Amino acid sequence: MHILITGAAGMIGRKLTQALLKEGRLGGNAISRLTLHDVIMPDTAPNAPFQIVSIGSDLSARYEVRALLRVKPDIIFHLAAVVSGEAEDDFDKGYRVNLTGTWHLFEEVRTIQKQTAAYRPRLVFASSTGVFGGPYTERIEDDFISAPLTSYGTQKAMAELLLSDYTRKGFFDGIGIRIPTICVRPGKPNKAASGFFSSIIREPLVGLEAVLPVSEDVRHWHASPRSAVGFLTHAATIDGDAVGSRRTLSMPGVSCTVAEQIEALRRVAGADMVRRIRHASDEKISRMVAGWPRNFNAKRATDLGFKAETNFEEIIRVHIEDELSDARATVA
Amino acid sequence: MHILITGAAGMIGRKLTQALLKEGRLGGNAISRLTLHDVIMPDTAPNAPFQIVSIGSDLSARYEVRALLRVKPDIIFHLAAVVSGEAEDDFDKGYRVNLTGTWHLFEEVRTIQKQTAAYRPRLVFASSTGVFGGPYTERIEDDFISAPLTSYGTQKAMAELLLSDYTRKGFFDGIGIRIPTICVRPGKPNKAASGFFSSIIREPLVGLEAVLPVSEDVRHWHASPRSAVGFLTHAATIDGDAVGSRRTLSMPGVSCTVAEQIEALRRVAGADMVRRIRHASDEKISRMVAGWPRNFNAKRATDLGFKAETNFEEIIRVHIEDELSDARATVA
Repeated sequence: MHILITGAAGMIGRKLTQALLKEGRLGGNAISRLTLHDVIMPDTAPNAPFQIVSIGSDLSARYEVRALLRVKPDIIFHLAAVVSGEAEDDFDKGYRVNLTGTWHLFEEVRTIQKQTAAYRPRLVFASSTGVFGGPYTERIEDDFISAPLTSYGTQKAMAELLLSDYTRKGFFDGIGIRIPTICVRPGKPNKAASGFFSSIIREPLVGLEAVLPVSEDVRHWHASPRSAVGFLTHAATIDGDAVGSRRTLSMPGVSCTVAEQIEALRRVAGADMVRRIRHASDEKISRMVAGWPRNFNAKRATDLGFKAETNFEEIIRVHIEDELSDARATVA
Repeated sequence: MHILITGAAGMIGRKLTQALLKEGRLGGNAISRLTLHDVIMPDTAPNAPFQIVSIGSDLSARYEVRALLRVKPDIIFHLAAVVSGEAEDDFDKGYRVNLTGTWHLFEEVRTIQKQTAAYRPRLVFASSTGVFGGPYTERIEDDFISAPLTSYGTQKAMAELLLSDYTRKGFFDGIGIRIPTICVRPGKPNKAASGFFSSIIREPLVGLEAVLPVSEDVRHWHASPRSAVGFLTHAATIDGDAVGSRRTLSMPGVSCTVAEQIEALRRVAGADMVRRIRHASDEKISRMVAGWPRNFNAKRATDLGFKAETNFEEIIRVHIEDELSDARATVA
């Protein structure tokens, strides 16, 4: 079985690669080849149990997509994207990568299928809760309208529509997944507006101070990196017919307030940890976060067997196991 | 004021042109120039009260769009589209015209704006109830999910998303309108699956037999060609700020069953007319129609002053006034 991961150099791409290397199989099939793709050439692994090829190229150039798909991967994980803040600042780049790049990928699969009728890969597309925009209901149901308020969300919503139509026409077998905010995100603090949800847990656990820029009653929607990888591998192997015509699913997660996050940290790691969180209100971040979804009823995904943590303590324990235990190096 | 109509050779485009010619103004402003665009050069009018320019070109060629917008129209009516059946049969053509062509138009407006900051036209986009797919609620509300089941609907839903994002960024002031099935559509019967909704009224009124391919309990969503033109001119002149961030609106219309259509025909024109409708069930058409929306609660549009007929008798009377009175030639 050949697998392709676009955006393989990102945090989730690297964790997915590690999981595939560890298992050597996916959905009962042995992996024979893994192609890792990103704008910069992703790291490969020494002593991998199967062939690994690393490619750095630009998906918004159609000939690059053609070259990438020449090996006809059986499963495509399409994770490559310009992130939310950058897509908002650089309008052209966001559309070029997130929409045109994705469309090229879909079109190229279709082109191969015209020549090789039997080719119909599973295409797992990483979408985003950014496809939604307020006003929200208390819990966002599976049939909530996609009315994004950012260019990133618009690009993801458009790609979701293409995914359903190309799947309906039989060009590939697409499954989109809207992943909650990943928490606890490993590595150094970054400039993402959502970064504090992770840093208020991650930094105290290694003896550092963390800054909380919003009020403690802010509610948000989380899943661990381990769950994100689980969503992707599950999406790669489920029965496509059971998904129906609406091919993108909101993934399950944990809805909790910042106060509940902090209380979970106290219970798991003690009151000393909590004292390392410094409150420093930031108007701009508070305003942005106020526009984000707070809670989902991910019924369709749950019925299809997608699983996440059920409370925030569990999310912290996963972080400690996966990132802070002696056996593992912290992912930089 | 400069006005551009794309798809001007179509039925609605011609009726809109006639209305603008008759009024000579739009929203209180005198029209100084009207550009009519289609893939084939639209007819112009002799003795028009303002300059009319007719252009035949392909919007999926970016340089053609550039040429078309050189005159910087103040109002753009973007009606050009490959219709539903053709977009389903010719996948490439549907996406090329309905998505790429529309995107080119939006991008070209943005390009002009980069050079001329004050340029921010009102862009009225003709979308479709095809952006919706079942299962439906009894009445489709304004926040119903866009989950199309056709390529045409997908292309329109993607264009709606672009329209909102380009408007949010200030590149133009876009208003999308989802027009009900136009009834009574003038002219000869065509091969559209929805054609019978019009032909069961239109044909009997001129002494011809009409074929009804579905059961009389089929419910559908209608507005007259006159209302469609009214939607477009109203959309060109309303206050954009009142529309909010979701820039496309479902238009008001008349929801009724085929039995109610026939009863309205009897009341308006007599029982003789009704005897000219022959029942000849068609499985394929019945199946297609079963997947179409039946009723809308077009609250946002109604609050913004959009108006349609309120019952089907009115729709028949509009047809008789506009198409069958001695003073007017029937539009072929």
